[in-house]
Amino acid sequence: MAHGPGVYKDRYEDLHVDTIDRRLAELGLTLPPPKRPVADYVGCKQSGQQLFVSALVSETRGAAGAEVSVDQAAAAAEATVLALLAIVREHLGTLDRIAAVDKMTGFVRSGPAFTSQPAVVDGASRVLIAIFGEAGRHARTATGVAQLPYGATVQLEMILRLHDRIA
Amino acid sequence: MAHGPGVYKDRYEDLHVDTIDRRLAELGLTLPPPKRPVADYVGCKQSGQQLFVSALVSETRGAAGAEVSVDQAAAAAEATVLALLAIVREHLGTLDRIAAVDKMTGFVRSGPAFTSQPAVVDGASRVLIAIFGEAGRHARTATGVAQLPYGATVQLEMILRLHDRIA
Amino acid sequence: MAHGPGVYKDRYEDLHVDTIDRRLAELGLTLPPPKRPVADYVGCKQSGQQLFVSALVSETRGAAGAEVSVDQAAAAAEATVLALLAIVREHLGTLDRIAAVDKMTGFVRSGPAFTSQPAVVDGASRVLIAIFGEAGRHARTATGVAQLPYGATVQLEMILRLHDRIA
Repeated sequence: MAHGPGVYKDRYEDLHVDTIDRRLAELGLTLPPPKRPVADYVGCKQSGQQLFVSALVSETRGAAGAEVSVDQAAAAAEATVLALLAIVREHLGTLDRIAAVDKMTGFVRSGPAFTSQPAVVDGASRVLIAIFGEAGRHARTATGVAQLPYGATVQLEMILRLHDRIA
Repeated sequence: MAHGPGVYKDRYEDLHVDTIDRRLAELGLTLPPPKRPVADYVGCKQSGQQLFVSALVSETRGAAGAEVSVDQAAAAAEATVLALLAIVREHLGTLDRIAAVDKMTGFVRSGPAFTSQPAVVDGASRVLIAIFGEAGRHARTATGVAQLPYGATVQLEMILRLHDRIA
Repeated sequence: MAHGPGVYKDRYEDLHVDTIDRRLAELGLTLPPPKRPVADYVGCKQSGQQLFVSALVSETRGAAGAEVSVDQAAAAAEATVLALLAIVREHLGTLDRIAAVDKMTGFVRSGPAFTSQPAVVDGASRVLIAIFGEAGRHARTATGVAQLPYGATVQLEMILRLHDRIA
């Protein structure tokens, strides 16, 4: 994906490459180092113009509404979606190939009486919209589960739409 | 999408527009006013010929098998899928653009010993088949969760396939 | 799909048909008889080149980490994915039409302190990779739920990508 700063470098690339990285910087957001899958699966699987992004759990542990507040859980969701984007960027070479966020599903580990799963997953949805604008607005499911891998607070998966390589 | 009853009105439209609305009337079904998303997401997101429909929770509250009977939960699933179709109709302008229901996922808030999630989600599946016929038969997941947003009984999401605009 | 062993039989078919069935035999794996859906849905729904495969629950019952060990639950996941492939084979006529496993979602019925859902779903992921090689590597979600239909231990769904009929 890398290319040298040659005299005849494609001016289209000058204008368009790394737009999303610049947007991340403007927002003061940094992506963490991309994580490796913890088991026998891949972080991303491309199928035509769709990219299925495997679920990732938050580093924050504990059930929302019990050990973890709704604000802490929403912050965990934001950190998790940035960690997903790090995996996607490594896979694609550049986040500029993302045409749209089609769907996000958020599983929130919930204490027995916790019913604010949408407010938790909003932590991730808001940052996607901040980064990608209209293209970042997505269909969504936010649901409550009793347990998650490693006792995490939030688990997020996405389906992205990619630009044609030609386009 | 609206068009007046002009003398020269396209006869193709006469035959084809609003077929599903007529089918709903035949079945004695009425769609409720379309709900707005409760958080930072969109109700529908189109990607190529797929339409991702965000999860919606039932107005019925309480856990199936505990506060809510299986029949009440199935009725809640039917009402929820009609509410989803209202959102889809507002988004597309007409339900006649739906070529097929590809996938429905139903999360059923379940009491500790409740294991009849398929019977609950059938309330929604049956009405889709009644409305859309063979095209309404879908792949499905019906699973049990401990909590749902707002303490709802059922949560449904769908992936629809759309006709080409050209077709 | 069947064709007689005629003298002029297409030699391309001689080489390519039933490759995956031969691979299953090499691995010592047998698919069970295909199950029928337990409710008002279909086992598989094709949409363009995607095949949505409805969720199936394991015959093994009980919560992982409580009544069922992690190894028993992983074995249940392996048996369940083979049962899913039996449904897919009946639907497509041959597993050789599968171009890739795009996504698998595994719901693991989990005791209160069970957090090894990835190790359970690995039982299914490993066998998909053994059968399909690189094409079997998939995006994945492994999550923990309080209940599943019939009290099952594991529930698996898949999205597959199909070869063009022409290709």
